[in-house]
Amino acid sequence: MTTTDTICAIATAPGGAIGIVRVSGPDALSATSSILDRDITSCPPYSLRYCHVLTPTGEVLDEVMASVYHAPHSYTGEDSVELSCHGSQYILQHVLQRLFQIGCRSANPGEFTMRAFLHGKMDLSQAEAVADLIASQSKASHRLAMNQMRGGFSKQLSELRNQLLQLTSLLELELDFSDHEDVEFADRSQLRQLADTIQHVMTRLVESFQTGNAIRQGIPVAIVGDTNAGKSTLLNVLLNDEKAIVSDIPGTTRDVVEDTMTLNGILFRFIDTAGIRKATDAIEHLGIERTFHQLERAQIVLWVIDGSQPLNNDTADRIVRASHGKTLIRVINKSDLPSCNNPCNEGLLVRISAKQGYGLHQLQAMLLHEVSRHIPSSNEVVVTNQRHYEALSHALASIQRVQEGIDRQLSGDFVCEDLRQCIFHLSDIVGEVTTDDVLQNIFSHFCIGK
Amino acid sequence: MTTTDTICAIATAPGGAIGIVRVSGPDALSATSSILDRDITSCPPYSLRYCHVLTPTGEVLDEVMASVYHAPHSYTGEDSVELSCHGSQYILQHVLQRLFQIGCRSANPGEFTMRAFLHGKMDLSQAEAVADLIASQSKASHRLAMNQMRGGFSKQLSELRNQLLQLTSLLELELDFSDHEDVEFADRSQLRQLADTIQHVMTRLVESFQTGNAIRQGIPVAIVGDTNAGKSTLLNVLLNDEKAIVSDIPGTTRDVVEDTMTLNGILFRFIDTAGIRKATDAIEHLGIERTFHQLERAQIVLWVIDGSQPLNNDTADRIVRASHGKTLIRVINKSDLPSCNNPCNEGLLVRISAKQGYGLHQLQAMLLHEVSRHIPSSNEVVVTNQRHYEALSHALASIQRVQEGIDRQLSGDFVCEDLRQCIFHLSDIVGEVTTDDVLQNIFSHFCIGK
Repeated sequence: MTTTDTICAIATAPGGAIGIVRVSGPDALSATSSILDRDITSCPPYSLRYCHVLTPTGEVLDEVMASVYHAPHSYTGEDSVELSCHGSQYILQHVLQRLFQIGCRSANPGEFTMRAFLHGKMDLSQAEAVADLIASQSKASHRLAMNQMRGGFSKQLSELRNQLLQLTSLLELELDFSDHEDVEFADRSQLRQLADTIQHVMTRLVESFQTGNAIRQGIPVAIVGDTNAGKSTLLNVLLNDEKAIVSDIPGTTRDVVEDTMTLNGILFRFIDTAGIRKATDAIEHLGIERTFHQLERAQIVLWVIDGSQPLNNDTADRIVRASHGKTLIRVINKSDLPSCNNPCNEGLLVRISAKQGYGLHQLQAMLLHEVSRHIPSSNEVVVTNQRHYEALSHALASIQRVQEGIDRQLSGDFVCEDLRQCIFHLSDIVGEVTTDDVLQNIFSHFCIGK
Repeated sequence: MTTTDTICAIATAPGGAIGIVRVSGPDALSATSSILDRDITSCPPYSLRYCHVLTPTGEVLDEVMASVYHAPHSYTGEDSVELSCHGSQYILQHVLQRLFQIGCRSANPGEFTMRAFLHGKMDLSQAEAVADLIASQSKASHRLAMNQMRGGFSKQLSELRNQLLQLTSLLELELDFSDHEDVEFADRSQLRQLADTIQHVMTRLVESFQTGNAIRQGIPVAIVGDTNAGKSTLLNVLLNDEKAIVSDIPGTTRDVVEDTMTLNGILFRFIDTAGIRKATDAIEHLGIERTFHQLERAQIVLWVIDGSQPLNNDTADRIVRASHGKTLIRVINKSDLPSCNNPCNEGLLVRISAKQGYGLHQLQAMLLHEVSRHIPSSNEVVVTNQRHYEALSHALASIQRVQEGIDRQLSGDFVCEDLRQCIFHLSDIVGEVTTDDVLQNIFSHFCIGK
């Protein structure tokens, strides 16, 4: 976790008009100056300079603009330079080689952001949000990452932590006076009340993870139904319809994995399932088992029913049972054909014709309505990160043991131990007690140059 | 070709840590200010400012660094802003959308560079070199593009053009006095001498195109030989050997099309040919014809000969004939096996074992030696652009007609007409007489954001 050397990396993807080489560290200004045709060490902070990058023999490698930052007023909190070069990989790689030659080191993934954390420019949960922000594909995931990067998450955690520290210090004071058994600095009922508040908030945060994760990864939607119910047609129509809507955002479309779509800024991830039909042999039976297994991963189940065919009651029962606890939407397809059956009207139901494109907007509105109930409001704090979720779960377990300890009138020692564990896990999230290994693991998921 | 509106585009490829949105035009500073949380219109030129891009409802879309340029001291020669954003396509697209909302227009490919040309920041051949520079993959192609962008090409052309203008003005003066038939302002022998110089330089430039184009596209090398001579093994060994060498330049490797390699900074492009064997039927005969046809595109022919087999004299004669005017290198493969034949020792010859990796470095050295004779030195001007080549060819034809006209003592009218044509074609290259259509065509090959 050293920050004494000067690191450099290409911070842009290959193939653009402009390519950025980022340099940060104590020697950033002098090192960069030594590959340029002008000295930028005396440039004022926040200034831009037109320069040439030279080869060792003095030939011009590129005409660049150098952005000059002085510590601590930079992204990393260190002296930094960003060279805006022509976006040729040949040029960018050779600019890097030149920097290596004069002693700069190739930056590890996320090392610029890690240095920002180590120099106190942001806490760990904010630093982690940077990677989420770069990966954000939808309005909802962008908002969560931006909130977290701007400190919304950290603020709530540090408030909780301060309350816990207060509790703990009172209890520890008691322990110092443990010879006098009748001393009780911390009012147990007040303590219990505070623990309840903390437990309540933390439960909400832990529970928000399912939503937060779904927003980040996409709300999982399973499309199930008989093989000829029009499942694939529906999926294609939904995706194509949406593709037209987002066609002005080429990058998004490019990055989108097959079978996801963004609707009103919310990412939906469709889970392909095999069509269900009467199993005539063991292999087909296996396929149907797999369908029901995949259905378990879904938050919303779209059950596509061929309205012109009689309903298979066995399948129907199984789908209803498997969708317990999920949002089940009955999609009666082929509504343009004469109806043959009328499935039970309980629950959500929409009549469509995937082929004619009829009823799709009602279906989309229904999907959005079901999801929006779980989507947090602008200012609500939502946990999106697996590491935070785990730390919060541990913290929650600790605070629950604190509650139990108070109820069972355990000695202050035990309660204190649990309080300290709870504080430890909360500190873990903002990076106050984090080890080098943990840091390295976190930042290894970043892209290079960030 | 309007430059009265303000244009914007994403100038980086999708997927990096940093994404740049570029804004240029008369309203660049005020337009950008209106989507930011601070006014950058009064920022000094060449300064960087930390800002937030806001949504219409005032939410933070991104934390960015804004680079501020004032006309004419910018790439385009106009007021310009570059927003350095987090590299999320969601964010970058929404920053663009915000700029569209307040009246900026989406930039066409190359429009920033076209504006630089229209504002006199560079001439047309320099502007064209920008695209070449971005596309450059090897040291040689980089150097040619950099020379051209820095004006080396334009300088030589404008010198030639000035000499021609001088000639033409003298001749035109004569025409004004055409009533007095004995007047001769332009000394014909001096004129002929000047035309010779210009013809000589232009011939060299036109001839340099073959080299220039080969450097840019890769030197075409055909590998021919019998099916079992070890052609593919040699190709694989050559490519793999080189892949190891360039493995520290990931971007280059990624962009490399199959069957090209860079050796000492020079790109070689291998042309696959079908193995030659005795044609037993008409179809096989066709395949062999195609091999000889492809051989015509090559500048260098590697003739792979199985040293352990007797030489097929018919094939040998055909290859030697087809390689006329090209560099033919006889590669005696399988030199580790007992030799059975000893082909004529004339010309270039190298003994290798592709399988054992023996003799490969001699072969590479021979390739480099043959090519380096044609590679221009640092300061030599080389034509790499098809459009320039065509204009120069026209100019050369015109100057040759001038020479002819002088020799045949044609009237000044005719000679003047050819001189004017020559000047026209030279002006075409630097963009002094270019039409909007030509400009649009040139810049449409640029990437967006440049």
